[in-house]
Amino acid sequence: MKAAVYYGPNKLEIADVPEPQPGPGTVKVKVGFNGICGTDLHEYYAGPIFVPTEPHPLTGRELPLTMGHEFAGTILEVGAGVTGYVPGDRVAIEPIYRCGRCAPCRAGTYNVCQQIGFHGLMSDGGMAEYTIVPVNMLHRLPDNVSLELGALVEPMAVAYHAAALGDVGPGDTAIIFGAGPIGIGLWFALQGMGLESVYVAEPSSTRRTAIEALGAHTLDPTQVDVSAFVTDVTDGRGADAAFDAAGVKSAIEAATASVGARRPTISVAIYEKPLTVPLLNLVMNESRLQGSLCYTSTDFEAVIALMAQGVYDTTGWVTTVRIDDVINEGFEALHAGRKMKVLVDPSDDM
Amino acid sequence: MKAAVYYGPNKLEIADVPEPQPGPGTVKVKVGFNGICGTDLHEYYAGPIFVPTEPHPLTGRELPLTMGHEFAGTILEVGAGVTGYVPGDRVAIEPIYRCGRCAPCRAGTYNVCQQIGFHGLMSDGGMAEYTIVPVNMLHRLPDNVSLELGALVEPMAVAYHAAALGDVGPGDTAIIFGAGPIGIGLWFALQGMGLESVYVAEPSSTRRTAIEALGAHTLDPTQVDVSAFVTDVTDGRGADAAFDAAGVKSAIEAATASVGARRPTISVAIYEKPLTVPLLNLVMNESRLQGSLCYTSTDFEAVIALMAQGVYDTTGWVTTVRIDDVINEGFEALHAGRKMKVLVDPSDDM
Ligand SMILES: [Zn+2]
Ligand SMILES: [Zn+2]
Ligand SMILES: [Zn+2]
Ligand SMILES: [Zn+2]
Repeated sequence: MKAAVYYGPNKLEIADVPEPQPGPGTVKVKVGFNGICGTDLHEYYAGPIFVPTEPHPLTGRELPLTMGHEFAGTILEVGAGVTGYVPGDRVAIEPIYRCGRCAPCRAGTYNVCQQIGFHGLMSDGGMAEYTIVPVNMLHRLPDNVSLELGALVEPMAVAYHAAALGDVGPGDTAIIFGAGPIGIGLWFALQGMGLESVYVAEPSSTRRTAIEALGAHTLDPTQVDVSAFVTDVTDGRGADAAFDAAGVKSAIEAATASVGARRPTISVAIYEKPLTVPLLNLVMNESRLQGSLCYTSTDFEAVIALMAQGVYDTTGWVTTVRIDDVINEGFEALHAGRKMKVLVDPSDDM
Repeated sequence: MKAAVYYGPNKLEIADVPEPQPGPGTVKVKVGFNGICGTDLHEYYAGPIFVPTEPHPLTGRELPLTMGHEFAGTILEVGAGVTGYVPGDRVAIEPIYRCGRCAPCRAGTYNVCQQIGFHGLMSDGGMAEYTIVPVNMLHRLPDNVSLELGALVEPMAVAYHAAALGDVGPGDTAIIFGAGPIGIGLWFALQGMGLESVYVAEPSSTRRTAIEALGAHTLDPTQVDVSAFVTDVTDGRGADAAFDAAGVKSAIEAATASVGARRPTISVAIYEKPLTVPLLNLVMNESRLQGSLCYTSTDFEAVIALMAQGVYDTTGWVTTVRIDDVINEGFEALHAGRKMKVLVDPSDDM
């Protein structure tokens, strides 16, 4: 079968690899679509970062590996002892391996497991025709949720988890910095949570246009003083939650200046280096800066339920490419900013 | 009567001013002791900052003003309509003026009132023989709590409020950065909350010696890798709360590297400029950076109750000076680091 195998920096090959067979407690999934995300780009251009170069404690696997941790597909075969799933079931995969023993795992917050691993980074993932998945990673997709949407559950769950940390609901005001896929996911999640006053600050006109087409109210932070705007529309109260999905100094500055007293600014970005942060903003109104990482099954189920209600829409920001085009039309196009989100179709029959 | 009147930068005079008389809803307090804090030093050396140069919306007062917002004393006279207090009552003063109408005030968190004012910064304060105080600022002192301790309730409440935001209790581990008066207050507050594992990181050997004498376990961050130490003593879990009472980059770095998954780092310092913060620390374990400002009456009452239980001790870090010596033995001594905490005795009969 075809698979996008990662060997190290700038080396991703569409290889012909043996078709895997499910062991006990696992299922064989025929992948419908697999998304490429920022983490994959980092591995490709600057890795290996997450992909282990010696056996991972939870999976025993190391480089080379088939990439892809954002995917949905159809169960083709179930391994010994698997109950509750049968061939033909359509599923989205929650790709976290956790130790189950550390303090966060015992508290149910396995998204911050001390030994966390990911299917598609620490084991062979979804950029292949088939992949073998432990049964506890499966989430059933309702009939009206397509496999394209299914492949987006993972990044949308990253955003939903961050939105939930914002602790907001109907009547509240939120400000999102950054309209990439996670910023879009935050916007959908907050819609799903019933917020009507959500503003999105994004300097790129292409990205603003994309999220506006979905219904968002945008601001150009190079033209508008975002915190003054937010202060104004909230009668001086400040936002009930601010979200940094941009990961840059100007966004953190404006977010911490926009958020209201005792309310959170959620950081859902990978900060490659320390940023200068106006901590006095946090002190003067007792606001907080809260990190957000990944998701748990609760977030997956919430996103799937909202997808079934029609809250999510791929129009204008999601592109599908054939696995043979994954480098040029996937990684390179994303890296150059020519595309926002790419789903890979690994089947031969596209 | 004698009063330390602030006229502007480097201009604090021991003046002879008229003795004030209590109006309706206020009491006249004979000041026992009044502490000098970092805010006062800022006003003296770099102000006016908090002291208004036009009438403050809540007090109607402006420069020049008698300084002093950390004090305790004895009620000498009560104004019209005052009930519940009589001459002779010993009280600590919670010096916050609040608007009562803004969102934080309505939520009971008047410490972040949008118009907040302080007795002794926006009105004539406690560095005088007598001062007039609204009755809602009064907290009764138990018989076994001295007026020296009473004057320390305000800064200890700043620290207690921060400690409470740490959301910790018996069995938990905390790390405090900075052993100035607020760091010492955090240490006492956490003792009062039942924590046995509290570590204090402080580069100054003088300050380490002072807090060690109170019973604290200290670390010298110039010699020890504090986050490695904390990770080790918590079996890799990280601190249940970290506190930055130092306000410097190295403290924020070590604090956010020491704190456990989904736990808080509390910022209780006045950051004069933005600091570079390793935000990835917050994201990777979903910890948070929480600002802490002042206190409310709950914190005042908690500190007074702990003082009555004997938790607080002034040995080795608190010095009392006469009002005539307030510049040389107060402001200058604190500024030069020759003293840690100074209480001014404004009476003529010392
Ligand atoms: Zn991803
Ligand atoms: Zn774990
Ligand atoms: Zn003070
Ligand atoms: Zn107010």
